Amino acid sequence: MTQTDAFLDAARHLLGERGITTDAELVSPWLTDWRGRYTGKARALASPASVQEVAGLVNLCRKFGVPIVPQGGNSGMSGGATPDDSGDAIVLSLRRMNSVRKFDSEAKQITCDAGLILQALHEMAEAKNLRFPLTLGGKGSATIGGLISTNAGGTQVLRHGSMRAQVLGIEAVMADGTVFDSLTPLKKDNRGFDLKQLLIGSEGTLGIITGATLRLVPALAQRAVLWAGLGELRDARKLLLHAEQIAGDALEGFEVLPHHTLASVLDHNPAARSPLQADHAWYALVELAADTSAGGNLSALAEHLLEEAFSAGLLEDATIAANETQAEQFWAIRDGVSAAERALGPAMQHDISVPVARMADFVVETVPKVEAKFPGTRAVAFGHLGDGNVHFHVLAPKGAQSGVWELEEGKAISGLVHDQVTSWGGSISAEHGIGQMKLDELARLADPVHLAIMRRVKQALDPDHLLNPGKLVPDLD
Amino acid sequence: MTQTDAFLDAARHLLGERGITTDAELVSPWLTDWRGRYTGKARALASPASVQEVAGLVNLCRKFGVPIVPQGGNSGMSGGATPDDSGDAIVLSLRRMNSVRKFDSEAKQITCDAGLILQALHEMAEAKNLRFPLTLGGKGSATIGGLISTNAGGTQVLRHGSMRAQVLGIEAVMADGTVFDSLTPLKKDNRGFDLKQLLIGSEGTLGIITGATLRLVPALAQRAVLWAGLGELRDARKLLLHAEQIAGDALEGFEVLPHHTLASVLDHNPAARSPLQADHAWYALVELAADTSAGGNLSALAEHLLEEAFSAGLLEDATIAANETQAEQFWAIRDGVSAAERALGPAMQHDISVPVARMADFVVETVPKVEAKFPGTRAVAFGHLGDGNVHFHVLAPKGAQSGVWELEEGKAISGLVHDQVTSWGGSISAEHGIGQMKLDELARLADPVHLAIMRRVKQALDPDHLLNPGKLVPDLD
Repeated sequence: MTQTDAFLDAARHLLGERGITTDAELVSPWLTDWRGRYTGKARALASPASVQEVAGLVNLCRKFGVPIVPQGGNSGMSGGATPDDSGDAIVLSLRRMNSVRKFDSEAKQITCDAGLILQALHEMAEAKNLRFPLTLGGKGSATIGGLISTNAGGTQVLRHGSMRAQVLGIEAVMADGTVFDSLTPLKKDNRGFDLKQLLIGSEGTLGIITGATLRLVPALAQRAVLWAGLGELRDARKLLLHAEQIAGDALEGFEVLPHHTLASVLDHNPAARSPLQADHAWYALVELAADTSAGGNLSALAEHLLEEAFSAGLLEDATIAANETQAEQFWAIRDGVSAAERALGPAMQHDISVPVARMADFVVETVPKVEAKFPGTRAVAFGHLGDGNVHFHVLAPKGAQSGVWELEEGKAISGLVHDQVTSWGGSISAEHGIGQMKLDELARLADPVHLAIMRRVKQALDPDHLLNPGKLVPDLD
Repeated sequence: MTQTDAFLDAARHLLGERGITTDAELVSPWLTDWRGRYTGKARALASPASVQEVAGLVNLCRKFGVPIVPQGGNSGMSGGATPDDSGDAIVLSLRRMNSVRKFDSEAKQITCDAGLILQALHEMAEAKNLRFPLTLGGKGSATIGGLISTNAGGTQVLRHGSMRAQVLGIEAVMADGTVFDSLTPLKKDNRGFDLKQLLIGSEGTLGIITGATLRLVPALAQRAVLWAGLGELRDARKLLLHAEQIAGDALEGFEVLPHHTLASVLDHNPAARSPLQADHAWYALVELAADTSAGGNLSALAEHLLEEAFSAGLLEDATIAANETQAEQFWAIRDGVSAAERALGPAMQHDISVPVARMADFVVETVPKVEAKFPGTRAVAFGHLGDGNVHFHVLAPKGAQSGVWELEEGKAISGLVHDQVTSWGGSISAEHGIGQMKLDELARLADPVHLAIMRRVKQALDPDHLLNPGKLVPDLD
């Protein structure tokens, strides 16, 4: 019997027939990331049903020297859940572990398995007149464990923070097979290093998240959604400060997009309508929201905000959604950007952040720089201005061949964008993580002191490099 | 020349005469913690003036094998900044490094040296119509670096979070003399492990914090302070839920104290007045606050809150501070508890947390248990109910001798309280950290998996145990 067979036998004994498979038809959908950028191989697909089974499997993998690639909904953006092509690793899917362990409406907390799907969490919260204040495009497949492992973001970070801010407790299986349990949520706990924080955003390289306790917030009692036309992006930053000052905690979201992006959405989706009569260089989508109706009327607050902004000369035009349908229509424009951009042909996409105050200047400087260096390209930036995070897309020249242009020109373009971001004190990965996609760029651009500490921590907690090898931590020997 | 002399010569060369001293008169005030519980010895007191000097000193210490005890305001509660009595270590004071590096009113951020004193930060923020939303009794001496190293709490955690939530960026000198710089605040940054989070609350055992970028919030536009008399502590939890529901984000603080504690404050401070006519078993001090006046009138909201709470039968009596003077008087009662308690004689103090929802039950069960097991003692719990964190004090029997009783009975009392806390899923250190005071109790009660991970991380980042030895991480070999 080969080592692989011995390992698979032992795993089958531990997990049962449902828990492990080598059937190519069952395994192969999970060997390619959803964007189709990366494809790997795996010895097997393991689907444990409990934290004890995960721990047992990790011990087995340790014994047989089998690397583990943890996977949630396989909806990541950086290839972090796709194995390499050696075929040495197993894919460890958490999808079978999708139970709610405890739902406490009064304390506004839920404890669940890592495989619970975001959409299901939203629905459960809504049914109890609560909400989970993080959402993103992949909510129908993204799992809680994956969202935590990648510290996911979205459009509500401005007010509610990223996934890190939603996590009250974590359960994880470490590389030595022990179970780290900090599920019980304590608002204050100063018993040493906050190891939970270390696991959040570690992309499965330090431990396999098997469960979590998350905060919920009250359901929205009211919201007001504004759409503004601006002469230039710097006015958006001023409008943001203005909105923070007037609306305070009620400011829930602040997104921007340039006219080029709005036009491509309108082209792509004939049902979409521009909220304003005329064209403007930039648009801001602003949401005010409140959990209670005690604080007064948000529509009145939104009107006050617009009046003040007009007086200050920040706006060319603006409108407030008259009802929920219209509010949804405004948001549908924003949510339709990705699909519309894809229809325009190949593009290099960059998920970057710089300090919020510098974002407008960064975009104003970087767009012409990129377009000048790569003639025929078009650089567009849109997204979460309130978080200092835009998606900076460089569209290929007309007629460029998809699959070829990216390879020929893409790397140099991304290199320039990342150089710019780094020189502005920013991050080459605001939301999407490093995975395998940005590993080389991280090695090239990160502070060597950061990298050295990361390597030491990785080495200390996973000395055999069993957990998600080839991801996030560059140049482990 | 001895090794010590060679080290001191080199240090003097690096730091200059102001930067290092062995003068007993200058050194000795920093060898005892402010509560007088711990006294140690030190080779010297070093006071570097810049991050480069700190890094140089760490390299020297590494070369000569000299342990380092970082110290801020020396106002910690757990002996975390006091050296042991071997005399091997130096005390590295950050107090000379107290500059503001950048104050950005628009972005509401400050970047400062670690030695900046909290009170000074408060005053600077106020001068710009902003505030730093964390305060505590030692604000006149506590430094930013110390507050970060201990993840300090206070009375505003309910709304604004502990120190961790205020920190946007950190600069620290690591044990190998490298400088970890993550001062530039990015709202979103997913470039690997969040090492900043690992340093926060690590009590100087992983790195020496030399600078930080902190968030500021708008100055308060209005507040409403309520004082309520309750029949039992469980009603306080119900009142808290009620206040969260009605006031939402405007709920700034929620403190409780039993009648025994109020009475001791009134005895100790003849100028203090009980806010209510009659006595009640428990009192709640509730603050609503808003950064803007846009959200409506908080007094009206406070009245609404009280009306609803009366209707629900949660209150025996209650009053709203009629003006700022009265609001300050309510808070002066809360802030006077420590001094009043001290005047009652010896006590064992415990800084504990359990899940917020369980705190009332925990106190109701634990108080009689402790008093029954240790006849003549009186157990009182007061503080941050909204955070699941109370200060659980066990007062000595009348006539007990200070300094003797603590040694004879104290350890057993604390052992019982900590056993109780642990069995309720709580923390033996909610706010004050582990330092040297709770090291044995942490070793006795912490989850072995947590401890093993802590030791590995410590070993990885400080293999020579140079940084604050004998603190926080138990049983390093």
